[in-house]
Amino acid sequence: MAVITLTTDFGTRDWFAGTMKGVILRLNPRAVPVDLTHDIPAGDIRGAAFALAAAWRFFPRGTIHVAVVDPGVGSARKAIAAQTPDCVFVGPDNGLLSLALAGQKIVAIRRLENEKFFLKPLSRTFHGRDIFAPVAGHLSRGVPLKQFGPASKTFEKLDWPQPRRRGNRIEGEVIYLDRFGNAITNIADQLLAGTKHLATCEVFGKHRRICPLKDFYQAVPTNKPVALCSSSGYLEIAVNGGSAAKTLGLELGTPVVLHW
Amino acid sequence: MAVITLTTDFGTRDWFAGTMKGVILRLNPRAVPVDLTHDIPAGDIRGAAFALAAAWRFFPRGTIHVAVVDPGVGSARKAIAAQTPDCVFVGPDNGLLSLALAGQKIVAIRRLENEKFFLKPLSRTFHGRDIFAPVAGHLSRGVPLKQFGPASKTFEKLDWPQPRRRGNRIEGEVIYLDRFGNAITNIADQLLAGTKHLATCEVFGKHRRICPLKDFYQAVPTNKPVALCSSSGYLEIAVNGGSAAKTLGLELGTPVVLHW
Amino acid sequence: MAVITLTTDFGTRDWFAGTMKGVILRLNPRAVPVDLTHDIPAGDIRGAAFALAAAWRFFPRGTIHVAVVDPGVGSARKAIAAQTPDCVFVGPDNGLLSLALAGQKIVAIRRLENEKFFLKPLSRTFHGRDIFAPVAGHLSRGVPLKQFGPASKTFEKLDWPQPRRRGNRIEGEVIYLDRFGNAITNIADQLLAGTKHLATCEVFGKHRRICPLKDFYQAVPTNKPVALCSSSGYLEIAVNGGSAAKTLGLELGTPVVLHW
Repeated sequence: MAVITLTTDFGTRDWFAGTMKGVILRLNPRAVPVDLTHDIPAGDIRGAAFALAAAWRFFPRGTIHVAVVDPGVGSARKAIAAQTPDCVFVGPDNGLLSLALAGQKIVAIRRLENEKFFLKPLSRTFHGRDIFAPVAGHLSRGVPLKQFGPASKTFEKLDWPQPRRRGNRIEGEVIYLDRFGNAITNIADQLLAGTKHLATCEVFGKHRRICPLKDFYQAVPTNKPVALCSSSGYLEIAVNGGSAAKTLGLELGTPVVLHW
Repeated sequence: MAVITLTTDFGTRDWFAGTMKGVILRLNPRAVPVDLTHDIPAGDIRGAAFALAAAWRFFPRGTIHVAVVDPGVGSARKAIAAQTPDCVFVGPDNGLLSLALAGQKIVAIRRLENEKFFLKPLSRTFHGRDIFAPVAGHLSRGVPLKQFGPASKTFEKLDWPQPRRRGNRIEGEVIYLDRFGNAITNIADQLLAGTKHLATCEVFGKHRRICPLKDFYQAVPTNKPVALCSSSGYLEIAVNGGSAAKTLGLELGTPVVLHW
Repeated sequence: MAVITLTTDFGTRDWFAGTMKGVILRLNPRAVPVDLTHDIPAGDIRGAAFALAAAWRFFPRGTIHVAVVDPGVGSARKAIAAQTPDCVFVGPDNGLLSLALAGQKIVAIRRLENEKFFLKPLSRTFHGRDIFAPVAGHLSRGVPLKQFGPASKTFEKLDWPQPRRRGNRIEGEVIYLDRFGNAITNIADQLLAGTKHLATCEVFGKHRRICPLKDFYQAVPTNKPVALCSSSGYLEIAVNGGSAAKTLGLELGTPVVLHW
């Protein structure tokens, strides 16, 4: 049994994601493909990187995580597989894997260049099907990583905004909006340690708003804003029973400031 | 092999549903997670309850049905697992499981309170990942239900509208709108027994409309309304080749009356 | 292990697709249901036929492909299973399977009429659950095709537009729009053999536009149109980093002409 997760911007309207599973199962009937999500906005490398970083640790050891948000498909951009103590990440080397890899020990990185493991004919527009799915299928059958191509020392990083701590305030911003309209910020829970009971959260959406810090959504009245530690490990702005994105006019990059 | 169905309002844009599968497969590599749906409108307990009630009986004996539409996550609301002769239902005790459980023999109900079976650290906002998925994973490996927490005699019921029979009419209402715009009512097929050939169906959408009772969609001309016995066991209002919701202006609660 | 793909217009909001998997797994716990897509627009037989034709060859030998876009459900339309050397196709006989079957050797076609293999009671509105899923489940367990009903010599074909070659031009049209807004035409890659370097592509969307023929999306600047050989084997019109459908005003049937 080998779990292979799929994170793409292919959507679910077409045959793209399903076809990747066909390719995987043809190579390894015992593989278990699992959709992380295919509804990443088209070309949104950062959103996919965040999703993968939030989810990979909940999968079994040995899981192969395939991510394909790949606007540069067919161009000179590299494709890589990166091995950590727990799992393998496979995808284009455009920053997509970098948030998940941050903080993990990198055992090895290989560039995917051995065409023996690609589908033929190799398209220039669908490497999810022709490169990444078959590489994952072969990996799941035990083909050693080093066979897929030359070693690489590094991988592309995303230019990810870091929160700034100044005296008794932390200045961050919204980095992810989920389907509920919850806004996840770049302020990690650990930064709040010890200060949480004292803190006030200021959100600069369409209008400036103050949100209390609470532990769960219904700790504030319906339709009221709340800041809390999200399940992804970062401070989140929510509206109980509603959408913080809509109600507070939040977007990616909206400033969020904690005071205490 | 243990089938575990998932019914949530988590959507498919984010990593939430996929992460639940990771948690399940980490605990039991032989589990088979099956999406019932993750596209229940945010917080729509009634819609999810109806979906689960319409679907559970088509799954193998022994299936574990996990449902998470949970606006009260992190608050004092209870979480339960309910065993019936056929399967186990797992979810928040907010009425979500009550339509599926109605009419089934309840073998046992346990409150999910044994933290041994939860992920740690336990979030206050994502019990799908931290409580319900791991409980399902452990259940699927054969952990006895009684280990998960204290027995409970009851579970939350939804205040579900009942149709009224008055002489030669039945007064009901729309209780579910599906992706085709078909409107399922609360008038069970059995109520029509013997009267079906004689009946006329009156629908009070934006305008009052009369629909003939037929057996299938194309039994009326394209774009014409029709009432029929839906596959879920309730009278359904449809428009052949179109959306009854849009064409007839139907909403949840729209009155539907049968005469004969 | 038997892979069973599902291609429907059932959407993912309701319990329809998930219920088909329940029916399959109840009959064959070792079956592996794989979603090709459930987001075919309601009633869009042509779109589903194209998706299935683009994907089937990437699945393992022996795969059972179930497709249900079935506006005539419950009427007199036939249901069929068609065996090819590689796989079996199951669905309503309304043209849905015809693009995938075109060019394949047909080993046998059977009409699905043996009620022994249907769910009971048999609904008139959800044959995906009551006929097609159980037939696939039984097939995957090795029930011979001939047991499902009488032999049929033919199947419904779609009236599919063919490109026209006139001197040094090929006149085609848009036949599929994918989630990225890429427009796939009916001009097969082979028609371009030898002429590709010389060709200019003229697209008659809202305004007439000329697109260069290139090998991949980023071969043109961001937001510029490009024509390329798509992964489905047909000429595709795209906009690098954008939606060709929106930017160029493309629809199904929009004329596309190649000159050289």
